[in-house]
Amino acid sequence: MLHVASSAQAEQLLKDVFGHARTPEIEIPASQALGHVLRRDIYATEDVPGFTRSSVDGYAVQAKDTFGCSDSIPALLNLIGEVEMGAPAPFSIQAGQCAYVPTGGELPVGSDAMVMIEHTEAYDAGTIGMLKPTAPGAHCIFRGDDVQAGQLVLEAGCRLRAHDIGALAAMGIPNVMVAKQPLVGVLSTGDEVITPDQTPTAGQIRDVNGPLLCASAQQAGGKAAFYGICPDDPKRLTDTLKKMADECDIVLLSGGTSVGAKDATPRVIEELGKLHMHGIAIKPGKPTILGEISGKPIFGMPGHPAAAYFIFRIFVAPLIDSLMGIKERPEPTFKAMLNQAIPSNHGREECVAVQLKQSEDGLIATPIMGKSGLITLLSQADGYLRVPRNQEGLPKGAQVEIIPFTNS
Amino acid sequence: MLHVASSAQAEQLLKDVFGHARTPEIEIPASQALGHVLRRDIYATEDVPGFTRSSVDGYAVQAKDTFGCSDSIPALLNLIGEVEMGAPAPFSIQAGQCAYVPTGGELPVGSDAMVMIEHTEAYDAGTIGMLKPTAPGAHCIFRGDDVQAGQLVLEAGCRLRAHDIGALAAMGIPNVMVAKQPLVGVLSTGDEVITPDQTPTAGQIRDVNGPLLCASAQQAGGKAAFYGICPDDPKRLTDTLKKMADECDIVLLSGGTSVGAKDATPRVIEELGKLHMHGIAIKPGKPTILGEISGKPIFGMPGHPAAAYFIFRIFVAPLIDSLMGIKERPEPTFKAMLNQAIPSNHGREECVAVQLKQSEDGLIATPIMGKSGLITLLSQADGYLRVPRNQEGLPKGAQVEIIPFTNS
Repeated sequence: MLHVASSAQAEQLLKDVFGHARTPEIEIPASQALGHVLRRDIYATEDVPGFTRSSVDGYAVQAKDTFGCSDSIPALLNLIGEVEMGAPAPFSIQAGQCAYVPTGGELPVGSDAMVMIEHTEAYDAGTIGMLKPTAPGAHCIFRGDDVQAGQLVLEAGCRLRAHDIGALAAMGIPNVMVAKQPLVGVLSTGDEVITPDQTPTAGQIRDVNGPLLCASAQQAGGKAAFYGICPDDPKRLTDTLKKMADECDIVLLSGGTSVGAKDATPRVIEELGKLHMHGIAIKPGKPTILGEISGKPIFGMPGHPAAAYFIFRIFVAPLIDSLMGIKERPEPTFKAMLNQAIPSNHGREECVAVQLKQSEDGLIATPIMGKSGLITLLSQADGYLRVPRNQEGLPKGAQVEIIPFTNS
Repeated sequence: MLHVASSAQAEQLLKDVFGHARTPEIEIPASQALGHVLRRDIYATEDVPGFTRSSVDGYAVQAKDTFGCSDSIPALLNLIGEVEMGAPAPFSIQAGQCAYVPTGGELPVGSDAMVMIEHTEAYDAGTIGMLKPTAPGAHCIFRGDDVQAGQLVLEAGCRLRAHDIGALAAMGIPNVMVAKQPLVGVLSTGDEVITPDQTPTAGQIRDVNGPLLCASAQQAGGKAAFYGICPDDPKRLTDTLKKMADECDIVLLSGGTSVGAKDATPRVIEELGKLHMHGIAIKPGKPTILGEISGKPIFGMPGHPAAAYFIFRIFVAPLIDSLMGIKERPEPTFKAMLNQAIPSNHGREECVAVQLKQSEDGLIATPIMGKSGLITLLSQADGYLRVPRNQEGLPKGAQVEIIPFTNS
């Protein structure tokens, strides 16, 4: 029998054993890469924009020709032509000349600034009066202003967001190498477990962890494969786990809260591979098992759904990130004030779900107390906090750090 | 010509005109509903759990039979049987009796508490000694502890998270009514605009807003339909917009920064429907247009990608939420300290992208200054802040509220 480990030991073990494992990289169109994890650094291969553009409708000039001009003493410049949108500027500007350029049009060679059309007056077809001086560079977006060839724009390990998709388009990058999404295999076990669409008779319970863990895997950026409900039968459990370890990147096994099942799961894992840990000092979630089969991580998840949920967030989600090559995932947190005490946790780290309310003094957190198996309670919560194992509970009024429940 | 409106006026207008519009509701399996928006309240139709269960391996007893017992004076009870997992308890407990119940098994009628097996000793096949007293309700999960029939568990307008999927399974709800995801039609315009995979010659630019706005629509929970790049031709623009308004829930039109195009877009919208607003006092994003065609909202997005991104987040994303029936979406924010001043914004609200760093004193925000069209700069940023229009910039050291960029 292995000793109950702290959650820090479990996190370290996962890093040590699986921290270097990665899913393969695959090439996909940049336009479909939202939410995927980049596997290689992206450098700009050209200047963006590729030419110096006007950001206003007006006249391209040599700025010095406008110095000192005003409404009463306009600078008169010779209009030599008009730049068309989408076409190169077909002439260059000399001293004393100007050319019309629309917003987004190319500045002709020789010009170094724009005068907005509102600050000009046309005297005749060939002469434009500038009524305000302009400075070199004014109203221009220079070649390479956005990004210069060779510059690092997106780093390997980032999860692509909508504006990153925009940046890839701006650089003309059609395809990107991203991480294949880890396949998370989920197996529910137990003679008493029935599918959610069945009506339980006394003694039976619906499979909650199957749908819960599949949805959690998707929410964390992976893909889920549900292997159904396995009765308490070591032979069938052995065969199914072997198959799952072959086909999946992570194996989650849940249920097995009866004595027979509790004994069977670690034994089967030991037979097929290696049992790393049995029991984590965290509440809820103590009966968690951590092992590997064929080099793949396998978790014996606690049978109680809320416990399974927290164990997933704390140990499985970071592993999904790591398999995809995300460098780190500091879960964003909020500061809030506890409006009631949380009693001592007897030497076990504790996850406590809370409801959040905005008040004049900031966020107020109300702990949702309940037995650890109660999944519907979590639906009333906005996030949770972790009470360290060496802390004697938390007093009313304490400032706490809340990890929000992911919204989508 | 319409006056430039404040962003608050634009938000109010969107609420007034489109605030009651909803996409149809559709029925989908609960197991596939992650991220979808619930359209009807979910009440529990039965008690969960449906029977009173043990949360330990041990003996079901009448608690009063154990009062006063100890290691040295055990309470001797008659063992009348064993409850099997997944089956109803086939007998009841009288005073002086006990029955073995595994974790998750049903408590027999008449029993009101469990004694953990560790606190018992078997004397012979028919007698078990209880070595520690137990209290009524100890180690039991009662029928309805998680949720009681008739209780409101999930409210219409919530976006379903992984643990909500678990709650639906626990209640045995196979299908849910959710909002059809709004279809966001995206059209890029401009003679100078080419597809991202083409190499621009001088004067041409790649279409950034097309991929950017499609990805933004998906990130916000909608679906995107890209209608390609339309040249500056009012007839084709008219035909395409009419088609888009017929097929989509929201129409986004971007580009058209040249004078001709700038005039054409509002004119076409007025011909086909109604032009509500032309120009919003927000930086970047001033040239934004707001109208409707066939009752569908249409946005003339600013041509500069970073501006288009902010306008999307501030005006389009909340509209997608509203069409799905999400009641409110308070964007989660972080407090941070500015490490450099942000200059005055000349009476326009301003969106400023920032990089965040954790320090001992909390989060530090560094503004990313750059011209408004520069999309790759956004990829360096972690979030943004909004400087109100009536504020004269922000001093170094100011505490600011940062809206994080969505991570996926």
